[in-house]
Amino acid sequence: MNFKLNRLSFSITILFFSVIALAQKNDSIQLRKIYDFYLTESKCYSNLEHLCKKIGPRLSGSKGAEDAVAWAKKAMYEAGADTVILQPCMVPHWVRGKAEQCQLIEKNKSTKLNVTALGSSVGTGEKGIKASIIEVKNFEELEKLGEKNIKGKIVFYNVFFNQAHVKTGSAYGETVKFRSKGASYAAKYGAVATLVRSMTSLADDEPHTGNMNYDTSVSKIKIPSLALSYVAADKLSQAIKNDPTTLVELKCYCETLPDVLSYNVIGQINGSTNKNNYIVAGGHLDAWDNGEGAHDDGAGVVQCMEILRLYKKLGVKPKNNIRAIAFMNEENGLRGGEAYAKFAKENNEKHLAALETDAGGHTPRGFGVDTLNGLYKKVMTWQKLLAPYFADRIGNEGGGADLIALEKLNVPCIGFEPDTQRYFDIHHTKQDTFDKIHKRELELGSAAIGALLYLLDLYY
Amino acid sequence: MNFKLNRLSFSITILFFSVIALAQKNDSIQLRKIYDFYLTESKCYSNLEHLCKKIGPRLSGSKGAEDAVAWAKKAMYEAGADTVILQPCMVPHWVRGKAEQCQLIEKNKSTKLNVTALGSSVGTGEKGIKASIIEVKNFEELEKLGEKNIKGKIVFYNVFFNQAHVKTGSAYGETVKFRSKGASYAAKYGAVATLVRSMTSLADDEPHTGNMNYDTSVSKIKIPSLALSYVAADKLSQAIKNDPTTLVELKCYCETLPDVLSYNVIGQINGSTNKNNYIVAGGHLDAWDNGEGAHDDGAGVVQCMEILRLYKKLGVKPKNNIRAIAFMNEENGLRGGEAYAKFAKENNEKHLAALETDAGGHTPRGFGVDTLNGLYKKVMTWQKLLAPYFADRIGNEGGGADLIALEKLNVPCIGFEPDTQRYFDIHHTKQDTFDKIHKRELELGSAAIGALLYLLDLYY
Repeated sequence: MNFKLNRLSFSITILFFSVIALAQKNDSIQLRKIYDFYLTESKCYSNLEHLCKKIGPRLSGSKGAEDAVAWAKKAMYEAGADTVILQPCMVPHWVRGKAEQCQLIEKNKSTKLNVTALGSSVGTGEKGIKASIIEVKNFEELEKLGEKNIKGKIVFYNVFFNQAHVKTGSAYGETVKFRSKGASYAAKYGAVATLVRSMTSLADDEPHTGNMNYDTSVSKIKIPSLALSYVAADKLSQAIKNDPTTLVELKCYCETLPDVLSYNVIGQINGSTNKNNYIVAGGHLDAWDNGEGAHDDGAGVVQCMEILRLYKKLGVKPKNNIRAIAFMNEENGLRGGEAYAKFAKENNEKHLAALETDAGGHTPRGFGVDTLNGLYKKVMTWQKLLAPYFADRIGNEGGGADLIALEKLNVPCIGFEPDTQRYFDIHHTKQDTFDKIHKRELELGSAAIGALLYLLDLYY
Repeated sequence: MNFKLNRLSFSITILFFSVIALAQKNDSIQLRKIYDFYLTESKCYSNLEHLCKKIGPRLSGSKGAEDAVAWAKKAMYEAGADTVILQPCMVPHWVRGKAEQCQLIEKNKSTKLNVTALGSSVGTGEKGIKASIIEVKNFEELEKLGEKNIKGKIVFYNVFFNQAHVKTGSAYGETVKFRSKGASYAAKYGAVATLVRSMTSLADDEPHTGNMNYDTSVSKIKIPSLALSYVAADKLSQAIKNDPTTLVELKCYCETLPDVLSYNVIGQINGSTNKNNYIVAGGHLDAWDNGEGAHDDGAGVVQCMEILRLYKKLGVKPKNNIRAIAFMNEENGLRGGEAYAKFAKENNEKHLAALETDAGGHTPRGFGVDTLNGLYKKVMTWQKLLAPYFADRIGNEGGGADLIALEKLNVPCIGFEPDTQRYFDIHHTKQDTFDKIHKRELELGSAAIGALLYLLDLYY
């Protein structure tokens, strides 16, 4: 009896491992098919060309954003969506107006410095601002200098990217606070404007824009806030070293108009089994007004869209509802992300996992995955499946700016992680154009996302 | 007694693991220092700029190659070499001569096709070759067609890169045989010349050169052999589909002159302990005559050279002799690699490990490592140390073309493996120029090589 039981238990064990081995083999075959599709038939590259070249800049509230919404809807249907939802949200409408001007006025000469107004900044108007400069390296220094040294001056946050970081995102994380919060902290001590060294790993003359926020709990006064190119920041720093009374004259014409109705665009493949479960992947459709938003984040939008075409191509139905999301307003408000989470909550949509790709369309490295609900552990079991595709570097922190609101609802989130070395060279500049996209790198990213969503659907 | 022995054995075990943990921690700190150096102080980028812009093309036997040797010697001393060895070798001296011409002659029109003569090819001379075309996809097809279909014609090997491969090197591996062996196989059946579709993942109009060999055991007749750009290959294929009697007229002026004396350049940091042991890393100094040899393989040369500066910077002496090698003649003869191995054997130099980097200066992925002498196992124990630097993908096949002769002497070899998506876009074309190099990617590759050599020296 005992012997028979042992034999039975042995047989069950063998069967169990055989089933697992067979499943892994099938998954591996299926992943190869998925990559074949992405590397030879996917449309993400031509889609991105259209978005960059036919639509181009598409900041929230702009005509470009409106066109992008209409295009994304059409492109998602073409990719094979069962349904495309336009999900309304009111978005900020900041406009740059005429080109900014910045003159460095030294004793014997006046030099043009390349600058860009930061998103959400107020303008100077036609009269401009002319003042001397006070350079700081951090907020502590600013506080120490205090009102007596700062009042009436332009504060210059001159903080370099730390090139020793391997992940350029770490350098960005350390410096972006001067862009986002610098104005209110400077205004608190009576500054009349702020200039910030562009957040970049590249020593060139392109200024990098990006959003800033006025924190009225710090200062009620809103002062203009602009970014200097790397080279311009060097010039300014040298000039005030030579002569601390050096002046800068600034003009910018940006303003914030009333909010505008816009939309997230959501393409869905209906699930065959779990009608109320969702697995979603998105990028953001809006992009800064100076470039084409190729890497930030046209790449993410077209990479996620391709999941719709994949399911049609494979001829299989997912068990759960699969969504590709083109979020609106990631750059200066996150209203799309918030609207999406609100809608999901109100409709009791159960989100098994949400992925965002917003770190550029470069060659894949892997994913950051939340530990919530065992998601990280689950994805780790697929590491071997992803290894042949060089997308198996799995970190245990996931998400993206558009997913913050979903994460608050305990949705486990994933961030797609491409290589980051080139991203901040062009981030938020007029250089973020389609020619910086490498077709195979874009496709490999899209494939990695498609493969992961496929596995998630199969095992959830 | 027994109890005491157990306690002793327990204490020894604890001590053993503590020592290992401490060593790993120290290694981790040291690697961070190494990367700090490479990312903030190394000179590989400016060195490569010099090599590309001041010297440029440097095919074996050329004035450029001679200048490159002189420069490498100087640069290695400047980097801190204790000694620099110029190791002589006789190299082939193939010259392109005047620019190639290729006209597609259809009934109503004549179209220029972008071509490049392959290295080692004979020329057509001023009289040129005018013949009809026979297109093949593989050698089997060629054999089946035989002399009756091929004689007097130009054989056109029209084989595409398989885009489904994730590693572009795999696609290269499948197609390069038509470039290297295609002429002799075609000559065997009476062909008068060969054209080959460029080995590339990019659908553009740049022809890719590269070496070919005449295999006199297959055919004694040497026929001219050229590569068509991707676009030109498409045009030609379409033209002969439209009309099989379409002609092509070819002119190329290349020839092989007598061998020339040249050199490997070897920079050495003397070992403090194991005076006869060597750990070496190299790239190849020669580069095709059409571009600047930025990725192929100026990158590899400057990346390896930096190991000399690293030891000076760290202020430590390696235990073993460390060498940076700039090999001569990888592209069309491998004479440098052979000379190096011969010298090493004759002088009984014990090579613990040899690394080559010749796959471009793109963002690092890791290393391929020979299993010989336990090298692969050893490197695998450092995977965790390399992980924070994204250089921890360790395969179990190492080496490089310049190391083939060393491998035959049972030296365990390593190949540095950067990301390969962009490499074959520009490989062996006039587009392989310095502007295609990304500073941080180049430095990260150099750092990965430096870190690995440091660990090898420490543990061998």
